[in-house]
Amino acid sequence: MSVNVRRAGGVLPSADATFVTDELRPYLAELLRREQTAWKEQGAPWWDPPEEVAAYLDGGKALRPRFCYWGHAITGEDTGPLLTQACAALELLHAFALIHDDLMDNSDTRRGRPALHRRIAARHRQHDWAGDPDGYGHAMALLTGDLAFAIASRLGAALPGPAVAVWDRMVGDLVLGQFLDLAGAARRDRSLEVARTTTMLKSAQYTVTDPLRLGAALAGLPELPIALARYGDLVGEAFQLRDDLLVVFGDPRLTGKPVGEDLASGKPTQLLAYAAKELPPRGQALLALAGTPALTRADVAVLTDELVRCGARNHVERKVRNNVDVACALLDQAELPPRVATALRSLAMAATERQR
Amino acid sequence: MSVNVRRAGGVLPSADATFVTDELRPYLAELLRREQTAWKEQGAPWWDPPEEVAAYLDGGKALRPRFCYWGHAITGEDTGPLLTQACAALELLHAFALIHDDLMDNSDTRRGRPALHRRIAARHRQHDWAGDPDGYGHAMALLTGDLAFAIASRLGAALPGPAVAVWDRMVGDLVLGQFLDLAGAARRDRSLEVARTTTMLKSAQYTVTDPLRLGAALAGLPELPIALARYGDLVGEAFQLRDDLLVVFGDPRLTGKPVGEDLASGKPTQLLAYAAKELPPRGQALLALAGTPALTRADVAVLTDELVRCGARNHVERKVRNNVDVACALLDQAELPPRVATALRSLAMAATERQR
Repeated sequence: MSVNVRRAGGVLPSADATFVTDELRPYLAELLRREQTAWKEQGAPWWDPPEEVAAYLDGGKALRPRFCYWGHAITGEDTGPLLTQACAALELLHAFALIHDDLMDNSDTRRGRPALHRRIAARHRQHDWAGDPDGYGHAMALLTGDLAFAIASRLGAALPGPAVAVWDRMVGDLVLGQFLDLAGAARRDRSLEVARTTTMLKSAQYTVTDPLRLGAALAGLPELPIALARYGDLVGEAFQLRDDLLVVFGDPRLTGKPVGEDLASGKPTQLLAYAAKELPPRGQALLALAGTPALTRADVAVLTDELVRCGARNHVERKVRNNVDVACALLDQAELPPRVATALRSLAMAATERQR
Repeated sequence: MSVNVRRAGGVLPSADATFVTDELRPYLAELLRREQTAWKEQGAPWWDPPEEVAAYLDGGKALRPRFCYWGHAITGEDTGPLLTQACAALELLHAFALIHDDLMDNSDTRRGRPALHRRIAARHRQHDWAGDPDGYGHAMALLTGDLAFAIASRLGAALPGPAVAVWDRMVGDLVLGQFLDLAGAARRDRSLEVARTTTMLKSAQYTVTDPLRLGAALAGLPELPIALARYGDLVGEAFQLRDDLLVVFGDPRLTGKPVGEDLASGKPTQLLAYAAKELPPRGQALLALAGTPALTRADVAVLTDELVRCGARNHVERKVRNNVDVACALLDQAELPPRVATALRSLAMAATERQR
C-alpha cells in the first residue's frame, strides 16, 4: 500500500513515503547493524537476531510511522532526528508485536511468507542442528521479539518527557489489547463491548491515535486537537474492522494470512459480535464451535457464507465507510495545515480500503 | 536463602533483607495493584496478568535487588524512592526473563511449582475454556512475560541518565546471553569460550555486576571501583557455575527443577566444556547425544556419574570456591565502608553455596 499523489505523467511519492524511504529505513538498517557489531564485540560468535529483526522490518506498511509523521507535521515543525528515532521505535515495537502475535496464535504465515518461527525452524532443519527444530524456531522467534522490544523500549524511553508518556501508554494499550484478544477467545466472549474495547486498544489507539499523539508530543503539542484524536480512534477502529473482514473474506494471496484463522480461534471481533445476534440457528451452532478443533474447514466455509447472508459483513463494511466519512469530516474541524489534512485523508483511505 | 547475622540469642535480618521486605515488596505489590486498576478503568472485564506477575515475584531470592542495594550503599547515600524503583525494575526484568526462559526451554517447573504456562493451562482446563489449554498457557505466559518486561522498561528508563545507560546495557547482556545459550546448544558448541561468554553475559554481569553498577550509578558514582567490578564478575560467574552444578547434581526438591534438564538440552556450560576435554570415550558418546531425544533417562544417570568420575564436577566446584575467595580478597582493595564489605562477603557466599 503506498500513498501516492498522481501528477502529470508520473507518480510523486507523498512526504511521509519519502520520509519512510529516505530517513526511517536507513536509520533502522544502521541501528541494527550497530547492534550486531556490539554483539560481535562482546564475543558472540553468531548474531542472527539483529539480522532477523532487520529483515522483518522490510515489507511492512509503516502505517504507524506515517501517522506519527503527520502528527508531528500539524505544528509545522521540521522533521529531525527525534522524529526518526520515535518512528524507528514504533516499527520495532510493531515487529515485536507481530512476532509474538504469530507465536501466540501459532500462525504459520505473515506478510505472505512463513512466520519467523517457521523460517528459523527451517534453518534448524537445514543445518541439522541439535534439538527439536520447531521448539528451536519458537524459542528463537520469542527471543527475537524480545530483542525488538528491548531496542524499541530503549529508543522510545530516550525521547523527551511528554513523548515518553505517550510511548508508555501505547505499550500498555498494546499489551492489554492483546490480552483481551486471547482472554475473550478463551472465554467465548461474543459481547460487542469486549470486541470494541479490544479494537480500541490494540488497533485504534495503538495504530493511529497514539502514533499521531507521539508525533504531536515531539513537536511540542501536549495533546492532540480533540477532533484529530477522534479521527484517530475512528480510522483506527475502521483499520481493525477491515482486518477482521480481510481475515475472513480476503484473498489469502494478498493478506498473507490463511482464510479462517480468526474463525478457527474464535477471536472477539465486532464481526462475530454482530453475527452472534443475527445468525440463524445453523450459523449460531457453527459460531459456538469457533475456537474449538470441532470446527472443520467445511464449517469455516459455511460459516463464512452465513456471515454474508445474515448481514454481518455488510454491517461491518458500512461501519468502515461511515467511520472514514466521519473521520474525514472531523479533519475540517481540526484546523490543520491543508497538506496535513489532505495526507490524513489519503492515509485514512489507504488504511481501511486495503486488500492486505 | 537469607542473609542473616546472628546476634545474642536471635537472628537480626541484614539491611538488604529488611529493604526487600519493607520497601521493595510493598512497592511492587502497590505498583501491580495500580496496573490492575488501570486495566479495569480501560474497560477490561478480566485482569489476570498483573496478578500473575505479582504472584510470580513472591518466593524469589531477590538477589539482584540485594546487589543493587549494596552498590548504592558504597557511597554512604541514604536509600530513597529511586533505589526502590530501580530494584523493582530488576525484579520485574527477572520475572520476564524466567517466564520466557521456561517457555524457550519448555520447562515444566520453576521454584518447585509448575511453570507459569503450566499453571495457566491448568486454569484453562479447570474452566473448560475454548481452544487448546497448552496453547493458551504458552500464549498467556508469553504475554505475561511481555507485561513484566514492559513495566520493567518503564521503571528502568525513568531513572536518571547514568542509571539508564546501565539499565540498557543490562537488558542487552540478558538478551545476548540468552541467545548464546540457545544457539550454542543447537550448534552443539562445547568450547570453553562460548560457555564463558554466555556465563559472563547472562549471569555475571546481569546478576551481579550490572545490579551493583546500577545502585552505584543511582548514588552518583559513574563507574564501579575496578576491584568491585571484578568482584561482581567473579561472584556472578560462580553463581552460574553453582547453577550448572545444581541442575545436574542438585536435589530437585530444593532446586525446583528436574535433574538432567541441562544435559537433555545440551546447554553450553563450562561444566560440559570441561567434560568435553576430559571424558573417556563412553562419556563422550553420551555427551554427543545431549540436546537430542536419543539421550535417555538412563543415559543422563550414566553421564552424570561420568561427569563426577572425570573430575569435571570437582573442577567446577574448585572454580566456584576459588572465584569466591578471590572476590572476597578484592573487597579489601576496594576501600568500601566496612558494613558494605561484610554484606558483600555474605552475599557472595549465599549466592554460590546455595542448594536451590
